[in-house]
Amino acid sequence: MARNTVVLADTHAPAVTRILAEFVAQHPSRGWTDAVDHEAHRTFYNWLGCAIGAAHHEAADIAVAAAKLLEPSAQASVLGRTEQLDMCNAALVNGITSHTFDFDDTHLKTIIHPAGPVASAVLAMAEHQGLSGRDVLDALVLGIDVACRVGNTMYPDHYDRGWHITGSTGMLGAAAGCARLLKLNAEQTAMALGIAASQPVGLREQFGTMTKPFHPGGAARAGLMSALLASQGFTASGKALEAPRGFIQVASDKRAWNEITDELGARFEISFNTYKPFACGIVIHPSIDACVQLRERGVTPDQVERIDLRVHSLVLELTGKKEPKDGLQGKFSVYHGCAAGLIYGRAGEDEFADAVVNDPLVVQTRNKVQAVVDDSIEEAAVRVSALLKNGERVDVHVEHAIGSLQKPLTDAQLQDKFKALVTPVLGQQRADDITRACWQLGSLVDVRTLTQLCRA
Amino acid sequence: MARNTVVLADTHAPAVTRILAEFVAQHPSRGWTDAVDHEAHRTFYNWLGCAIGAAHHEAADIAVAAAKLLEPSAQASVLGRTEQLDMCNAALVNGITSHTFDFDDTHLKTIIHPAGPVASAVLAMAEHQGLSGRDVLDALVLGIDVACRVGNTMYPDHYDRGWHITGSTGMLGAAAGCARLLKLNAEQTAMALGIAASQPVGLREQFGTMTKPFHPGGAARAGLMSALLASQGFTASGKALEAPRGFIQVASDKRAWNEITDELGARFEISFNTYKPFACGIVIHPSIDACVQLRERGVTPDQVERIDLRVHSLVLELTGKKEPKDGLQGKFSVYHGCAAGLIYGRAGEDEFADAVVNDPLVVQTRNKVQAVVDDSIEEAAVRVSALLKNGERVDVHVEHAIGSLQKPLTDAQLQDKFKALVTPVLGQQRADDITRACWQLGSLVDVRTLTQLCRA
Repeated sequence: MARNTVVLADTHAPAVTRILAEFVAQHPSRGWTDAVDHEAHRTFYNWLGCAIGAAHHEAADIAVAAAKLLEPSAQASVLGRTEQLDMCNAALVNGITSHTFDFDDTHLKTIIHPAGPVASAVLAMAEHQGLSGRDVLDALVLGIDVACRVGNTMYPDHYDRGWHITGSTGMLGAAAGCARLLKLNAEQTAMALGIAASQPVGLREQFGTMTKPFHPGGAARAGLMSALLASQGFTASGKALEAPRGFIQVASDKRAWNEITDELGARFEISFNTYKPFACGIVIHPSIDACVQLRERGVTPDQVERIDLRVHSLVLELTGKKEPKDGLQGKFSVYHGCAAGLIYGRAGEDEFADAVVNDPLVVQTRNKVQAVVDDSIEEAAVRVSALLKNGERVDVHVEHAIGSLQKPLTDAQLQDKFKALVTPVLGQQRADDITRACWQLGSLVDVRTLTQLCRA
Repeated sequence: MARNTVVLADTHAPAVTRILAEFVAQHPSRGWTDAVDHEAHRTFYNWLGCAIGAAHHEAADIAVAAAKLLEPSAQASVLGRTEQLDMCNAALVNGITSHTFDFDDTHLKTIIHPAGPVASAVLAMAEHQGLSGRDVLDALVLGIDVACRVGNTMYPDHYDRGWHITGSTGMLGAAAGCARLLKLNAEQTAMALGIAASQPVGLREQFGTMTKPFHPGGAARAGLMSALLASQGFTASGKALEAPRGFIQVASDKRAWNEITDELGARFEISFNTYKPFACGIVIHPSIDACVQLRERGVTPDQVERIDLRVHSLVLELTGKKEPKDGLQGKFSVYHGCAAGLIYGRAGEDEFADAVVNDPLVVQTRNKVQAVVDDSIEEAAVRVSALLKNGERVDVHVEHAIGSLQKPLTDAQLQDKFKALVTPVLGQQRADDITRACWQLGSLVDVRTLTQLCRA
């Protein structure tokens, strides 16, 4: 956590507030490749599943109860629940639920979870205004581009300094997305970004508490309100991002302005978005993946004498818990993750239930797992060797886990993940109907046909 | 703007989140001297006048219009207007109007304008809940103590870095005040402070735009909502202020923890609050004060041949505009300020109207003013010498301007300021009635009797 030595104000920054505002206001609808557009569908679908899946988590109950103290109007749906709230509060709550399971999307270059702030704001506003699925996708792609490009500019210094970068860039993405929905011109969009720039939301110290998922929710709300204010003529600095006392220089000593301007409108950051197959930290994904592969190769828990892992040092540092007592602790146990992978072939939110973590077969299996640090192993990799009772050895080497950029979840796998999250909340029929609507999002005339399906 | 060299995380910070939470939850009602309680009345009264005075400023019209897009419920009044909004949006708008004229209170040690975020949140919540004036005063004193003590801890590094410290400490003051109103216990209050810690609002780059007054408004809203969330059980880090990745260490390299703990509950920061007599930057207050004194000594504009100022260098650097074209430019002209002081004996918001700035007598008078930098003059001081047409000289030396801690506005002067702000908006009768209610605030059974008077 040492900071750089003597960092001076940069008085020659390019006019990135203006540049991003013009981009957001003027880039053509669907002005990108089919691959980018498909990734936007995947990002939205994955985000929606996470939000609905956590609809009845305690954090959601509390956030809805607090919002109701404001007696809000019914403008937009709380996903997976019966309530409707005003746009700002719906964006807040959906932002919270989408990040509650730590199961949402990840822009690996910056560790930003971009859909949380952006999609939560955009869908709430689009629902209230009866906009189209295409409007939502355009706003999502452009909003995520703004948040992630600003993130690229500041990462890693900004994150190292202690900001939870998802919420401290997300307000800009949400403002950009909502400005696009409101058809603000470039000048107004610059004002929306400017107002949002004064409202970063998020400290890493909050990790492990409900305020962590509050960050994308708070950023969604801040960005949405910034766009509404700008639409009515509220003013901000037109250099709120790049000025010496603007957001980026105040919040980061790294200011790689070219990350904002390079290939703007040609390269889209949503292309680098990834989706977790397992409901836990990214660092134990390779190990779980390897154990799922053992299972696929016919290895069963009762055959196994011992499972040896050779892992990167971060794995044991962050997830070395040998005897997890409940689901939350299970998320910090590579041993539990491996047991779940071998027994169930999956490690979704269900496999981190308290009952599963304490299930005798799971306990027995995780006790067979041993892990040692191997400095030749990359962070994204693992070497797993299962010694069977019959003396056989089955080796699995994972170089990039499933869900990484190199080995992304397939659409079918994303669908499995979505349905596992949504079916317990809304039932199988709805999960199927929403899935269909999401893959067709680009041709949906009115997103209210979708949000209606998402309401309990 | 050079930053310190290599600043390491402080892992031995005292538990200031917990300490402040216990203080806010447990300090007895009116647990301070009469002088402190009187200062609380003055702070509230001054804040209220500023908020009502700017009720019809363009920024207020826009903020109300944006808030109405959310179709909010009518929980709390927009001061000086007809509208009622939900608590959060009322806090936002009143926070904006109270800072719009740059005429609100100043905690000179930190340049925090503490009432903006704290009183705006506290009054909105108290009105909705029908709480007493004593409740409001208790919440105001404690909330301001939290915001200003955190400010003392980080100032000046935090401000130098580019944060608009009013909004980037104000969310903590607002959360503390609202937690007190909700009678949260120490644990819940710590959570309210924790949730708020993730939501600083404010960049100095926004100075000169509507987003500057948005900062106290946004901080008020953030703090109020944090308290509501905490009241329902939402969790945050219990070390959100002091942890290595908590707010204070993330946002400042200066961390003088003793500023939070020293004499806590015995010394109250509201004692150091000041109120501007003139509706412009503090730096030209001594010069205006001197010209008001010339007038009081019988000097009239037509008698004057020339007025010579010897000033601190900052005066000309910040307010050296010789030919201001409108009211806003007039605020950056020591020449206009002096002309207003000599002609009207005052420099309230009215004296910075476009028409006044362009009035022939005003123009003629300011052209008689000459200023030179004198390195022996302190920032708080000025030496003014009026050469009269009859050859006489009248000298005035101001060491501390009226409105400073050394020469505070009297209650009568505060009342004149209030009435000049409020009468044009609500009429003289209301200005008188509100004044009476404010001096009696501590014995008001239900603040709704006051807020009703403040509604147009």
